[in-house]
Amino acid sequence: MTVQPFTLTIDATDGAARAGRLDTAHGAVDTPAFMPVGTAGTVKAMTVEAVEATGAQMILGNSYHLMLRPGAERIASLGGLRDFMKWTGPVLTDSGGFQIMSLAKFRTLSEEGVIFQSHLDGSRHNLTPERAMEIQNLLGSTVSMVLDECTPFPATEKEAEDSMQLSMRWAERCRGAFEQRPGYATFGIVQGGVYPHLREASANALTAMDFEGYAIGGLAVGEGQDMMFETAAATIPHLPADKPRYLMGVGKPLDIIGAVQRGVDMFDCVLPTRSGRTAQAFTHYGTVNLRNARHADDPRPLDESVSSSVSQTYSRAYLHHLIKAEEILGMMLLTWHNLAFYQQLMARLRAAIRSGTLDTFAHTFSTDWSRGDIEPL
Amino acid sequence: MTVQPFTLTIDATDGAARAGRLDTAHGAVDTPAFMPVGTAGTVKAMTVEAVEATGAQMILGNSYHLMLRPGAERIASLGGLRDFMKWTGPVLTDSGGFQIMSLAKFRTLSEEGVIFQSHLDGSRHNLTPERAMEIQNLLGSTVSMVLDECTPFPATEKEAEDSMQLSMRWAERCRGAFEQRPGYATFGIVQGGVYPHLREASANALTAMDFEGYAIGGLAVGEGQDMMFETAAATIPHLPADKPRYLMGVGKPLDIIGAVQRGVDMFDCVLPTRSGRTAQAFTHYGTVNLRNARHADDPRPLDESVSSSVSQTYSRAYLHHLIKAEEILGMMLLTWHNLAFYQQLMARLRAAIRSGTLDTFAHTFSTDWSRGDIEPL
Repeated sequence: MTVQPFTLTIDATDGAARAGRLDTAHGAVDTPAFMPVGTAGTVKAMTVEAVEATGAQMILGNSYHLMLRPGAERIASLGGLRDFMKWTGPVLTDSGGFQIMSLAKFRTLSEEGVIFQSHLDGSRHNLTPERAMEIQNLLGSTVSMVLDECTPFPATEKEAEDSMQLSMRWAERCRGAFEQRPGYATFGIVQGGVYPHLREASANALTAMDFEGYAIGGLAVGEGQDMMFETAAATIPHLPADKPRYLMGVGKPLDIIGAVQRGVDMFDCVLPTRSGRTAQAFTHYGTVNLRNARHADDPRPLDESVSSSVSQTYSRAYLHHLIKAEEILGMMLLTWHNLAFYQQLMARLRAAIRSGTLDTFAHTFSTDWSRGDIEPL
Repeated sequence: MTVQPFTLTIDATDGAARAGRLDTAHGAVDTPAFMPVGTAGTVKAMTVEAVEATGAQMILGNSYHLMLRPGAERIASLGGLRDFMKWTGPVLTDSGGFQIMSLAKFRTLSEEGVIFQSHLDGSRHNLTPERAMEIQNLLGSTVSMVLDECTPFPATEKEAEDSMQLSMRWAERCRGAFEQRPGYATFGIVQGGVYPHLREASANALTAMDFEGYAIGGLAVGEGQDMMFETAAATIPHLPADKPRYLMGVGKPLDIIGAVQRGVDMFDCVLPTRSGRTAQAFTHYGTVNLRNARHADDPRPLDESVSSSVSQTYSRAYLHHLIKAEEILGMMLLTWHNLAFYQQLMARLRAAIRSGTLDTFAHTFSTDWSRGDIEPL
């Protein structure tokens, strides 16, 4: 059997936006693509069959969580993350660096790497660029991400530059440590804060290392949508056109649309899943809080324009009831709906790029989105 | 369209056991049948599609929970319980009496009915036999249960008799209040504690009221399996052979098998669903606690003899991980597996009755069940 090499094929563009297909060792992904987050070996409150039914083709796993529990070596002995959780499509894993900064109880950063204490049991761990790649290799990740320092926002130019340079040295070490396998990939991560010339320098440094794909990191950390778009737009022209571009941790629907318009191919975000566990539903008229009593007698579905049976079948009254009664099914159905909403958005973005109508689609979506929820009955 | 009348068709017997089909306004149910419990308008942690995939054909709803939240009138205005939760098959509801005794904060029982305070918000409610039937009518229940007093265990003969006589007077009022519709049913509930002559008197009193089915109530309340079997065996000969017999709240697999051998057709129990949310899985070698560290590296499935993809696909190591990480998917998959285990048990019981091998099946099942879980690797 010939293994499919890791390749991005662009078949349509509309302005800076591109639509195409990413082939991997574990199947193809239509781009632009949204990857649901499966933190600890599960997209929370979803079976893998349900994730697939929403249209998702690739998911994200968090190395930080998995290395601590159940452990990367254990997952390797159980056949890798995909077999462990029975997800047959490709998986992208982050390096663990971002969660170490946000979750670990204590951490020390040095040129060598980062030493931290687990938020679960206080145990001490040492994550180097080499170990980050080893962990992702043990997990069997289709796409591994380099270990980087996610530059905080705000940061001075000097701080952003020093941080970016450290990330570039780590990226070089990750590149060297990555075990090449057909159809697998490592993505470099562009840093540099909100400083265009640092972003350019970072993109150039990574391109020289010849990664299979490039991520834009350090955004969606509080800088706001305008600055996020500016920074992405300042970065993308310096990335190779024939490789996938991944905007990490983004985002809200309008963030995704704007980033697609600027040439981004891949996204991940906890928003649809986390919202689904906190009573928030995405509709084409904006978000809806199902906990609100206005839904208690409403027989209408969440959003009939979303072609998922969950979105079309269950009444708002029923979903409201499940949430008030703290039933697990409420979280299951809202997560399912939200992921279906996101996947449908991506499918519509791809179709709009292919028909050369992306700006019109973006305008219509934005107008609808700002309109607010349907009137109470 | 002709509506199917509510009919039990027995097509095979083996000793006192019977196999057949219960036809209802909302579809057919193969008997002996196990009804998963859907307390508050959802079989907890399961979509209705998943419930159906386990082989379940009929589910149970709790009137007590539904009358308090979201309210019987509200469910009626939303199309009834089946449409509310999108369950297309038949639904049986209890009367609410059992939960008033076990959950309500305060209650006063009189000839008229029972006044109680909601465990949710302390609001005061009055449940009479007539209101219990009205509530179940509003819910659109395929099978309504009469309001009864579940006689506590232990009870003196005098207490059991007084309690049973009250339940019989309430049953008469329920019978009068039931709105007859083709394919719908009301079941009387035999009480009488563990006293055979009281059970006989209760069965005779109910039979004279000509219910569409008969339940054996007041068991599985601490009397033990031997006494439960004895009481069921003392009751069943006094029930009409052509009507379904339902043993309420039972039970463990060996309880169900023994009751089927004594002529019971229908069961419900929270055990498979509640166990699924507390890390306990049913296998043909007994129950397994997936929280136990012995499963952490075990690549074997829960029970390959259960023909459900959940039971056959996921490793014990993965399920253990989900439970340790407190992932919702752990509860979802264990509940699914447990319900599939129960439904497969019922299918095997029906097949054994039809092939005249029920005693052999019961013996083999019991031997396997007592053997204990597979050896650690």
